[in-house]
Amino acid sequence: MPYFDAASSAPLHPVARQALQAALDEGWADPARLYREGRRARLLLDAAREAAADAVGCRPDELVFTPSGTQAIHAGISGALAGRRRVGRHLVVSAVEHSAVLHAAQTHGATAEGTVTEAPVDRTGRVSPDVFASLLRADTALACLQSANHEVGTEQPVAEVAEACRAAGTPLLVDAAQSLGWGPVEGAWSLLAASAHKWGGPAGVGLLAVRKGARFAPQGPADERESGRSPGFENIPAIVAAAASLRAVRAEAADEAARLKALVDRIRTRVPELVPDVEVVGDPVRRLPHLVTFSCLYVDGETVLHELDRAGYSVSSGSSCTSSTLTPSHVLRAMGVLSEGNVRVSLPTGTTEEEVDGFLQALPGVVSAVRERLDAPSSARPSPSPAADSLVVDALGKRCPIPVIELAKVIGDVPIGGTVTVLSDDEAARLDIPAWCEMRGQEYVGEEKAAEGVAYVVRRLS
Amino acid sequence: MPYFDAASSAPLHPVARQALQAALDEGWADPARLYREGRRARLLLDAAREAAADAVGCRPDELVFTPSGTQAIHAGISGALAGRRRVGRHLVVSAVEHSAVLHAAQTHGATAEGTVTEAPVDRTGRVSPDVFASLLRADTALACLQSANHEVGTEQPVAEVAEACRAAGTPLLVDAAQSLGWGPVEGAWSLLAASAHKWGGPAGVGLLAVRKGARFAPQGPADERESGRSPGFENIPAIVAAAASLRAVRAEAADEAARLKALVDRIRTRVPELVPDVEVVGDPVRRLPHLVTFSCLYVDGETVLHELDRAGYSVSSGSSCTSSTLTPSHVLRAMGVLSEGNVRVSLPTGTTEEEVDGFLQALPGVVSAVRERLDAPSSARPSPSPAADSLVVDALGKRCPIPVIELAKVIGDVPIGGTVTVLSDDEAARLDIPAWCEMRGQEYVGEEKAAEGVAYVVRRLS
Repeated sequence: MPYFDAASSAPLHPVARQALQAALDEGWADPARLYREGRRARLLLDAAREAAADAVGCRPDELVFTPSGTQAIHAGISGALAGRRRVGRHLVVSAVEHSAVLHAAQTHGATAEGTVTEAPVDRTGRVSPDVFASLLRADTALACLQSANHEVGTEQPVAEVAEACRAAGTPLLVDAAQSLGWGPVEGAWSLLAASAHKWGGPAGVGLLAVRKGARFAPQGPADERESGRSPGFENIPAIVAAAASLRAVRAEAADEAARLKALVDRIRTRVPELVPDVEVVGDPVRRLPHLVTFSCLYVDGETVLHELDRAGYSVSSGSSCTSSTLTPSHVLRAMGVLSEGNVRVSLPTGTTEEEVDGFLQALPGVVSAVRERLDAPSSARPSPSPAADSLVVDALGKRCPIPVIELAKVIGDVPIGGTVTVLSDDEAARLDIPAWCEMRGQEYVGEEKAAEGVAYVVRRLS
Repeated sequence: MPYFDAASSAPLHPVARQALQAALDEGWADPARLYREGRRARLLLDAAREAAADAVGCRPDELVFTPSGTQAIHAGISGALAGRRRVGRHLVVSAVEHSAVLHAAQTHGATAEGTVTEAPVDRTGRVSPDVFASLLRADTALACLQSANHEVGTEQPVAEVAEACRAAGTPLLVDAAQSLGWGPVEGAWSLLAASAHKWGGPAGVGLLAVRKGARFAPQGPADERESGRSPGFENIPAIVAAAASLRAVRAEAADEAARLKALVDRIRTRVPELVPDVEVVGDPVRRLPHLVTFSCLYVDGETVLHELDRAGYSVSSGSSCTSSTLTPSHVLRAMGVLSEGNVRVSLPTGTTEEEVDGFLQALPGVVSAVRERLDAPSSARPSPSPAADSLVVDALGKRCPIPVIELAKVIGDVPIGGTVTVLSDDEAARLDIPAWCEMRGQEYVGEEKAAEGVAYVVRRLS
C-alpha cells in the first residue's frame, strides 16, 4: 500500500527506530543533573547536537532542539525580530512559505508597528532574488525564505537571496523543513529551522540554528533549557533518533535523490499523457527530488484523494474542497495556477518503480470516474451552434469544481468573441477560472463585484 | 544502582515502552490527513486523549497534548490571562510554584498593567486557603496553585483554594506535574497542567486541560493542531505511550503509594537519628507518597550529591551551591528553612526496602566525611570560656556552608547574651543563619547592610 505523502510526514527510518529504542534506556534522565543518569543523558544530547550541527553546517553551540519544526520557526522568527527591534519592525517573507511562517508573520503584523511584506513568486512558485532584494528596507528586521516549497517542490534561490540579505545587513531565516534530509542549505543564511519527521526522524523534534553574530532575543517565559531558546524538558530519545536518522538519510541522499528524481520525472511526463486536462505545476528542474504536484480540471480534490486512497495510494491536495477553510492553498494562489483536482505526490525513501507505475495505472480511471460522476465536459466536446453573444452562468452556492464545469459546458454556446459570465461565491473560482482560460486558450477578461458573489468574465477565442 | 530522583524525571514505565514501540508503526502519519495512515494516527490520538481525560477527570475535548509540562503551563497561563483580559491583569501564584509557573508570571508582570501577587507558605511549604483567598481581587484574571510541591512534597489545599476561587469568580490553574500519576486533582479547578515523564511516560508530552466555560485565548501564532492550543505536529507515538502509562501507574497507585509512603516515613524518621544536625522539611503527613527532603548543617549540597552519586545514589538538591544562580531554591527560601546540605529523595515506582536501607546506611558516612573535610564543628563541641561580649566573623567571599560553619565555631566564644555578627555576601546566608539559630536554640537578631555584604547578628542564648 504505497504511501506517497512524505512531505507531510515520512515513515520512521529504521535507524531512527534503533536509535530511539537504545536512547530510551540511556536518555530519560534530566541532562541538567550531575548524577550518572543525568551525565549519560547529557552525553547523548551533546553527541546528537554535534551530529545535527554537522549535517546543518553550523557549530553545535549555534543549534538547539525544539519540540517541532513549527516551534523552531515560531521561536526563530520571534527571537530574531526581537533581537533587532532597534533596527525596525519590518518583516519580509515569501508568499509561498509554510503556514508556520505565515502565521508567525501575521502575529508580528498585528503588533504595534509590526509590518510584513510578502515577496511574490512566478508561476513555478519561485521568488526572484532581485525582487526579494528590492523589498529589503533600512527597517527590515528579518527576511524568511524556504529552501524548497512544500507543496510544489520548487527550490528557492536561497544562496542569491542570502547574499542580497547579507549585503543589506538583514538576517535571513531559512525554513529547510523539506530539504534538510537531502543536503545542507548553501549560502550565508543567519537562521535555519527544520523538522525531524520530514526526514524519517520521529515526531517531537525540530531544530533551530542561529549563527553567531545574529542578534537573537528569545521571547516568552524564561527557561534554562537549550540555551534559553526552547522551553521544556529535552526529549532526548527522540533527539538522538532525529540526529541518527539525519545522518543516515544523508548518507543515502545522493543515490536516492537521483532515483526518486527519475520516478518523479516519469510522473511529470506520463500524467499529462494519461489524463486529459491536467496541469503539472512547480519548477520541472530546480525542484525537490521526491515531490510533484498536478491539478486536474473538472474534478474535486477531495473525491480524487478518497478514490486514490481506496485504490491504495495516500496523497495530499491543496484544493479548497479538501480544506476546512474553503480556500485553495495559498501556494497555488500565489503561483496563480489551477487549484481544482490538485494532487501532491511526495515519495518516501525506498519508493519503487512498481509503486509509481501502479499509481500511474490507477490515476486515469480515478479521474475519469470522478469527471463522469460530475458530468464534466470531455475535452473533445464539439461546439454546438452559438446561441447568444453573451451568456451568464449562475453558479452561486456551488463549490469547486462545479463553477468551472458549468463554464466549460456553455463556452461553445457563444460565438468566438462572445463572453460567458460566471457568477460564483466560491473562493477557488478566482484562481481556477483564469487557470482554465489559460489551459483552454480562452481569454480571461476579469472579475466584477456582483449583487451576490463575483462575476468572472471569459471571452471565447477558439 | 538506585535512582532516587523520580521528581525530576522517572524512568520509562514498561507499559510506556510497549505502547511507544507499537505506536511508532501506526502513529507516524499526519492525523489531519484523510488517507488510511492519517486515519490510523487520528484513532490513536483520539483514544489517547480519551484515556488521559479519563485520568484527569475532564472531557476529551477539554484536554490537549503539549510538547512538555512547561509548555502546558506557559500556554495555560498566557491563554487564561488573555481570555480574561477585560476582567483585569492581576495574577496570583503561590510562592513555591515550579519555575515554569514563576517564569510565566514574571513575563506577565513585565507586560503593561500586568501585576503578580505571590501567596506565602508556612514552614511546611503549604499555602493557607484563607490567605490565598484574601489575595483574590476584582481584577484577578487567574490564580495558580500546584497540587503538591516538587521540592518538599507538601500537598496544597487545592480543593479549598479552588472553592475560594470559584466563589470569587477567578479561574484556578493547577500544576499537577508531581501528583497526577498518583490520582486526579480534586476540586473545582478550571485549568490543569501536567507532564508525562514525571509519571513514567516518555519525554515530549505534557497535557493541558481547560474546562468548558473557562475563558481561553491561545497566544502566539495560529496553528490548527490541538484545538489551536498547542502548535506543531502531534507527537502521537509519545502521546500514546504517555496515556497508556498514566493508566498503568494509576492502576498501581494505591498500593504503590502506601508502600512508598512507608519507605519515606522510614527516611523521615531515621535520617535525624543517624545524622546529627539535620532538618527534615515539608509536611510529614499531607505529602506526596514518594518524596522527602532534608537539609544537613555544615555541608555543601554539591559535595553531598557528588559523594552520594559515588556511593550509587542519584538524588537532587535545592542548595545554592548546586545551582548556577548561587541562590538557594525559591521553595526553601519561601518556607524559611535551612538550605545548606539540602537533599531531595524521590523514589520511583518499584523502589525496594533494601535500596532505601542502603541509602540510610551510606548517608551518615557521606555527611560526616564532608563535615570533616570542611572542619565543621561537631554538635557536641564544648563551649570554651567566653572571650568577648561580641565578635565579628568575616565570611565575605565564602560560599555556603562556610558562613554558618564559621558562626558555629565561634558562638561559644561569646557569653550567653553576647552576639556574633557574620559578614557575608552569600545569598544562602540570609536563609541558613536564621535556620541555624532555630535549630541550635540561638536568637537571630536580624540583618544590617554592611560596607560590603550583609551583617547577620546572632545572640547566644544557650
